[in-house]
Amino acid sequence: MWLNLSSIFNKLSHDPNIRAIVLSGAGDRAFTAGLDVQAASQGTLSQNYSDPARKAHVLRHHILDFQSCISSIEKCQKPVITILHGISFGLALDICLASDIRLSTSTTRFSVKEVDIGLAADIGTLSRLPHSVGNLSWIKDVCLTARIFDSGEALSAGLVSRMYKDKSEAVTEGLKLANLISEKSPVAVSGTKQILNYSVGRTVEEGLNYTAVWNAAMVQTQDVKDAMLSGLQKKKPTFSKM
Amino acid sequence: MWLNLSSIFNKLSHDPNIRAIVLSGAGDRAFTAGLDVQAASQGTLSQNYSDPARKAHVLRHHILDFQSCISSIEKCQKPVITILHGISFGLALDICLASDIRLSTSTTRFSVKEVDIGLAADIGTLSRLPHSVGNLSWIKDVCLTARIFDSGEALSAGLVSRMYKDKSEAVTEGLKLANLISEKSPVAVSGTKQILNYSVGRTVEEGLNYTAVWNAAMVQTQDVKDAMLSGLQKKKPTFSKM
Amino acid sequence: MWLNLSSIFNKLSHDPNIRAIVLSGAGDRAFTAGLDVQAASQGTLSQNYSDPARKAHVLRHHILDFQSCISSIEKCQKPVITILHGISFGLALDICLASDIRLSTSTTRFSVKEVDIGLAADIGTLSRLPHSVGNLSWIKDVCLTARIFDSGEALSAGLVSRMYKDKSEAVTEGLKLANLISEKSPVAVSGTKQILNYSVGRTVEEGLNYTAVWNAAMVQTQDVKDAMLSGLQKKKPTFSKM
Amino acid sequence: MWLNLSSIFNKLSHDPNIRAIVLSGAGDRAFTAGLDVQAASQGTLSQNYSDPARKAHVLRHHILDFQSCISSIEKCQKPVITILHGISFGLALDICLASDIRLSTSTTRFSVKEVDIGLAADIGTLSRLPHSVGNLSWIKDVCLTARIFDSGEALSAGLVSRMYKDKSEAVTEGLKLANLISEKSPVAVSGTKQILNYSVGRTVEEGLNYTAVWNAAMVQTQDVKDAMLSGLQKKKPTFSKM
Amino acid sequence: MWLNLSSIFNKLSHDPNIRAIVLSGAGDRAFTAGLDVQAASQGTLSQNYSDPARKAHVLRHHILDFQSCISSIEKCQKPVITILHGISFGLALDICLASDIRLSTSTTRFSVKEVDIGLAADIGTLSRLPHSVGNLSWIKDVCLTARIFDSGEALSAGLVSRMYKDKSEAVTEGLKLANLISEKSPVAVSGTKQILNYSVGRTVEEGLNYTAVWNAAMVQTQDVKDAMLSGLQKKKPTFSKM
Amino acid sequence: MWLNLSSIFNKLSHDPNIRAIVLSGAGDRAFTAGLDVQAASQGTLSQNYSDPARKAHVLRHHILDFQSCISSIEKCQKPVITILHGISFGLALDICLASDIRLSTSTTRFSVKEVDIGLAADIGTLSRLPHSVGNLSWIKDVCLTARIFDSGEALSAGLVSRMYKDKSEAVTEGLKLANLISEKSPVAVSGTKQILNYSVGRTVEEGLNYTAVWNAAMVQTQDVKDAMLSGLQKKKPTFSKM
Repeated sequence: MWLNLSSIFNKLSHDPNIRAIVLSGAGDRAFTAGLDVQAASQGTLSQNYSDPARKAHVLRHHILDFQSCISSIEKCQKPVITILHGISFGLALDICLASDIRLSTSTTRFSVKEVDIGLAADIGTLSRLPHSVGNLSWIKDVCLTARIFDSGEALSAGLVSRMYKDKSEAVTEGLKLANLISEKSPVAVSGTKQILNYSVGRTVEEGLNYTAVWNAAMVQTQDVKDAMLSGLQKKKPTFSKM
Repeated sequence: MWLNLSSIFNKLSHDPNIRAIVLSGAGDRAFTAGLDVQAASQGTLSQNYSDPARKAHVLRHHILDFQSCISSIEKCQKPVITILHGISFGLALDICLASDIRLSTSTTRFSVKEVDIGLAADIGTLSRLPHSVGNLSWIKDVCLTARIFDSGEALSAGLVSRMYKDKSEAVTEGLKLANLISEKSPVAVSGTKQILNYSVGRTVEEGLNYTAVWNAAMVQTQDVKDAMLSGLQKKKPTFSKM
Repeated sequence: MWLNLSSIFNKLSHDPNIRAIVLSGAGDRAFTAGLDVQAASQGTLSQNYSDPARKAHVLRHHILDFQSCISSIEKCQKPVITILHGISFGLALDICLASDIRLSTSTTRFSVKEVDIGLAADIGTLSRLPHSVGNLSWIKDVCLTARIFDSGEALSAGLVSRMYKDKSEAVTEGLKLANLISEKSPVAVSGTKQILNYSVGRTVEEGLNYTAVWNAAMVQTQDVKDAMLSGLQKKKPTFSKM
Repeated sequence: MWLNLSSIFNKLSHDPNIRAIVLSGAGDRAFTAGLDVQAASQGTLSQNYSDPARKAHVLRHHILDFQSCISSIEKCQKPVITILHGISFGLALDICLASDIRLSTSTTRFSVKEVDIGLAADIGTLSRLPHSVGNLSWIKDVCLTARIFDSGEALSAGLVSRMYKDKSEAVTEGLKLANLISEKSPVAVSGTKQILNYSVGRTVEEGLNYTAVWNAAMVQTQDVKDAMLSGLQKKKPTFSKM
Repeated sequence: MWLNLSSIFNKLSHDPNIRAIVLSGAGDRAFTAGLDVQAASQGTLSQNYSDPARKAHVLRHHILDFQSCISSIEKCQKPVITILHGISFGLALDICLASDIRLSTSTTRFSVKEVDIGLAADIGTLSRLPHSVGNLSWIKDVCLTARIFDSGEALSAGLVSRMYKDKSEAVTEGLKLANLISEKSPVAVSGTKQILNYSVGRTVEEGLNYTAVWNAAMVQTQDVKDAMLSGLQKKKPTFSKM
Repeated sequence: MWLNLSSIFNKLSHDPNIRAIVLSGAGDRAFTAGLDVQAASQGTLSQNYSDPARKAHVLRHHILDFQSCISSIEKCQKPVITILHGISFGLALDICLASDIRLSTSTTRFSVKEVDIGLAADIGTLSRLPHSVGNLSWIKDVCLTARIFDSGEALSAGLVSRMYKDKSEAVTEGLKLANLISEKSPVAVSGTKQILNYSVGRTVEEGLNYTAVWNAAMVQTQDVKDAMLSGLQKKKPTFSKM
């Protein structure tokens, strides 16, 4: 399933017809309740290896592969808006933190669930949370306790940027947001995503330097001229695919 | 104009008579509406070059120079308080994010406007926002949509730290804040700005190590003795210029 | 006293009977009012050295040693919950920012006091604040002015994650929180603390890579199997000491 | 062809029957003369795009994909010994620098050829050379001039670690070296490769920290006990596959 | 004088008529004997300041300004070949290490002289040597003792890449080398210098990522087509200015 | 024994009577043959733990503690010259790479021995070698094979900077070198060691910035004036202790 997720996002990333992506969960109950514990307990972890080092070798590659699947959302050239509704535990956090914009509903129930199954979250939550949310004390509270928190708390802490009544409204508004983004220059949009992601965890100097190299090519787009002209003419520009 | 801004801040940075700086926009309408699109459309971007690489070469230097002008606010030894009033689009963000403290008014209208002119913001906004504001989902929302947001949203997201009724009140309070800072030891104030800016985007270990080297010289100031003595004597200390 | 603090935390870090730590101040008045200015004014700073370089040499080591004492809280394998009540000035900030979870009371009064004694805070506050709180404008406001702020402001800015009526309630709730954490797998808890602390100030890529190496060993714990089994059996797991 | 190279190395990386790899060129004339200029001139570079930004977008992904193919040699868990014989231009450098050990013959002719086709080498040579060779003045000399240098110069500068009479001898000795390595513990060998590669371009502190996490799992291998026992018994140990 | 050096290199950096630079010392005796100790002893160091912190403040800016002058050689878009002849002490090292290619003569006498005037070299030597020379034990030997070493030792340690009989021959050969470089594509040459300098002190991953962004624009140059065509036609290409 | 080594170096580091340190092995046979395999095989590794994660937890701390003992040589304020004679295996490399200057004798036999006991070297060799020796192919050759190499090879690869006839001559020359260093300003010497160590594995920009903060205090030493005056007067200066 994770390999599928990854190959879908890699495909969307390179499809010129796609400008923005809304990711939501099927059904009413949950975005995802996380790892299927039953299945996982019969996977790599339960296999026998000749010693703990050889098992560690396999496990490290397994974790790296799993991380890589989820990181395909972050690496995707197009912005990804995640709608979190209902139960949003464990991998729900890994997934939404790899995406760009997080929306939730009044009934979303979040949990960084991993400590409850005996492990430190290893698919991205712990690496991305300190860069995504401003209150480190709150981050540690929810990560160390695995306690369930609601959408209001997620909004107030800064984990999501908007909360809607229910999944239906959230999807409608997420699509509007995706639509708004898709009207912008794809050169500008993909550059904005890239440079923001690059700047996270790096110094301002590194960020500025990278931005200058990036835009040396990208501002040569026809889109800048079209956008400027449209602005002066009070018209809405159309940008070609990328 | 940006070269002027830079040379003014370089001068203020080294002027021992200056202790803190308040930067506000002239007039009632806007802090700044950003780049003059008409002028920009006739600048470097519209010139002809023999090939895209040579144009990229010129553009990269142009961007680096422009970034350097705005970064003079960040590099300035003295704290800079920016008052954002009215329209505060595009470069308004670059400027205020290079400064230390951001104040706004009830009528400020913000926009990370660049995607609307076909480009990723390249004068600092995208490199500094992830270190200045705690909600990364909100950052991406406003950067990818260029939507206008008001002062309340800016305050709640953490982009500004205080909101006032109007420009007049914001300037009055900004000056009070500058005055308060200017009564402190200039050695302590400039060190605090420097170490905070250094710590952004670096590990805690790097920050601590740098701080120890910095203060090895700086705590030898007479100001520490004067401040401590004043504290014990319940008197207000006076610190010499730096 | 700081050497004592450090040796206590080093001991707690390695004591298998300890699962979580609550750190609170004695008495009703203050968590700590910070450095004893009278004592400090008679310490290293007031001694004579043959030249400023040799004095800087001694001071740098003194600062590094002091930082190292406070960092023992951060390095401690077990989560540390700090209860800030009453006056919480100067070193109170250094201490609570080195800990994991910060709780306060309705009467806590905070101040990053150091500029008032003529120096840039050098025991950790300035290195950790930009990673712990999302509003950089607010951080600079309180660090540059040394102004006193209350618990509501600390909560709203994200410096603390929860505020209680008074010290007694805060301690009770802090202990409940510690208790909740102590019921989790110690392997999961210590890994979560470690990986979050590692991820601060580093790129997502570095964080993911480190996490994979870490968990290659750690998910081999019996705790994962026990936790999964307990989850499936709806029972409460018990984890052995670490 | 590069995709093939990559999938071969990914396969070898995970094949437990493989302990070490010798990579050499077919035929007598060349390890590789580098990019097929004729083919390349008809590829991505010569296609038409609607503007330079969209072309840059495609080219960046093309370069990243190409780099990723070559980096599969570096990421391969098993040590890779590259035998450079005859003409070893352009991509020969990218390839051998991504491998672990570089051997050459008395007739090898090297060139960092890229400036001669109008571009800065972008498949790894310029990123890896400063970490692989100690004389930065020499590195810049050969990279800026694309001049041909011989095996003696490569050995003396430190680009290769051993030089043999001809390809046949080099392959024989390379296989002996691979054989020697394949008798060692695969846990020790893959860890040594990983930690050395990690340490390149990072601080000693980061290297030490990473090593401790790595070996916390890896020294639990049966191989340590077997190796120690064999050492004490003056016997040759056999290590199981990994 | 250093401000002059800097403004000359800034000018050469942007002058499209310049393709490569040879920097040599006037006269027969010395490249430079380093700082004019007499003058320096009457400069900033001997002025009076109200306290060591305020003096440190001035000195730090003085050092940063001086470093910036010398770094203009490194930042210069065009390759810089430094010819070291005769006495090459102190600043000679700072200068040549900021340049790209170092040539010396049979009579050059080198010394990292700074410890002999009571200070750690602070204009670049200590930051650049560990990235320019592969033998760290040798680096520390010459930096800690300030002992004079000759050209043979410099060549063998890897500080210079070529040694000539005397200044006259070195200049002739340096000019030939500059000439060779100036026949190459200026897009390729400046990119090669930039990417090599970027890669120093950074991880391979960072280097590769930066390279891909850089070349996304730069391989769009007409020079690639011209160079490839010339190669196929066995003709010598001519590249336009940059 | 390693705790002793560490406490000795910590003491020497702070003893103002010490200016430089020569570290050599007792007896004629060996600097050190490395870990006592028999003892090690009965230590932490052979103890029983309830699961591999808990064992990894203990082992990680054990490795970090051991690394910290050896790193006390690197952290020591005074330069450390290591004389490697006879058998110099395993920990001999960790030790000498943490020191500043490496000297050897015609009979020294080196080996990065760890793969022969089933593990990747984890006490510093693999983290420091890529920064100490310029030929990465050679580094991997000796680390992956554990083959014994002689002093000539070590000198030629750049692992040591000087080779002497025998231990007696090496110690005599090492002491002369230590003596020469001890005549220099201790402020200059300790700063040179610190800044070089800081610059390793960091960018030039980081190195320059750190140097400027460091020297802002350190050039205020009386030693600069004394050294300059002595230079002008052709006299030998004496520097006070630090």
